This record gives sequence, structure tokens and C-alpha cells, in this order.
Amino acid sequence: MSADNTSQQINKTIRKDVEKIVDKCDIEDICAQCDAASNKTVSYCRCWKSKKFPFCDGSHNAWNKETGDNVGPLVITKKQA
Amino acid sequence: MSADNTSQQINKTIRKDVEKIVDKCDIEDICAQCDAASNKTVSYCRCWKSKKFPFCDGSHNAWNKETGDNVGPLVITKKQA
Ligand code: FES
Ligand code: FES
Repeated sequence: MSADNTSQQINKTIRKDVEKIVDKCDIEDICAQCDAASNKTVSYCRCWKSKKFPFCDGSHNAWNKETGDNVGPLVITKKQA
Repeated sequence: MSADNTSQQINKTIRKDVEKIVDKCDIEDICAQCDAASNKTVSYCRCWKSKKFPFCDGSHNAWNKETGDNVGPLVITKKQA
């Protein structure tokens, strides 16, 4: 990689000591988190700016405003009975 | 935003006509996808390079190699009975 390519890294801050950040979740655990949330929803960060990574904390909005980007979270919802 | 900030966008190609890309999934549907997969797993892209976005197609590996980044997918697995 060249120095120029390095500047393109989309993750600047999160766990840079790790070679590749893969977050593994059990669907059963996500289901329990949905149940516990008032909106029955769990949001996962895809902008690499969240202070609650791997969860979304809304930081994508400042990022989009600053750069004109259009990134946002993966939102997992439980269907209401 | 300045021209310099614009160059930092982490999503260069996916649905740039949309103001903010938020993918909403029902946990029940993810569960069915896990069941259908031989490894009981569904992987969601967080590098914005996948040709199967919102799903991971392994493109993060080329990105990491090219830029020295360390991004990877969110992997959702169903516990085996
Ligand atoms: S904070 Fe990263 S997608 Fe919301
Ligand atoms: S292709 Fe984007 S995280 Fe795997």
C-alpha cells in the first residue's frame, strides 16, 4: 500500500491494533436486545465513527454533514406481534 | 463541506442518489436467512465496497490490503440447537 492509499482508510480510530474487525453476534442475543429496547430495534454502525461501536450512536449524521457522504446504520427490528 | 472533506467519503459508489442509506431488516427474516445458509450465518457489509451490499461479499479484504485498513463485516449467527 502507498501512503496515499493509507489516508483513505474508513476506520481511523476503532481497535486499530486488530488486523480485521469482524463482530460476531448471535441472533438470539440480538432478539433479546430488540425485546429490551422500547422501539424493538437494534442499530449497528457502518460509518466507523460511533463511540458505541459496533452499535450506532448517530455519529453518521455529523460525518455525512462534514463530508457529503450518505452512510447510515443497519437497523434490525423485531416484528410486532 | 469542503472539497477536501468530500474526498473522505467512505461510500463512493452505493446508491449515491439517496441522502442516507439505512437498511432495515426484520430479525425474523435474518433468522430465515441463517437457517437457509449452510453455515447458519449472514454477514453484513461495513466497508461499503460489496457488490452485494448490504451483504458482505469479501470485498473488505482487497480494501484492507490496498489501504492498510482493518474493516470487516457484522456476522450474525444462529446458535446451533
Ligand atoms: S454511528 Fe455509525 S452508522 Fe450510525
Ligand atoms: S464486503 Fe464489505 S465488509 Fe465484507
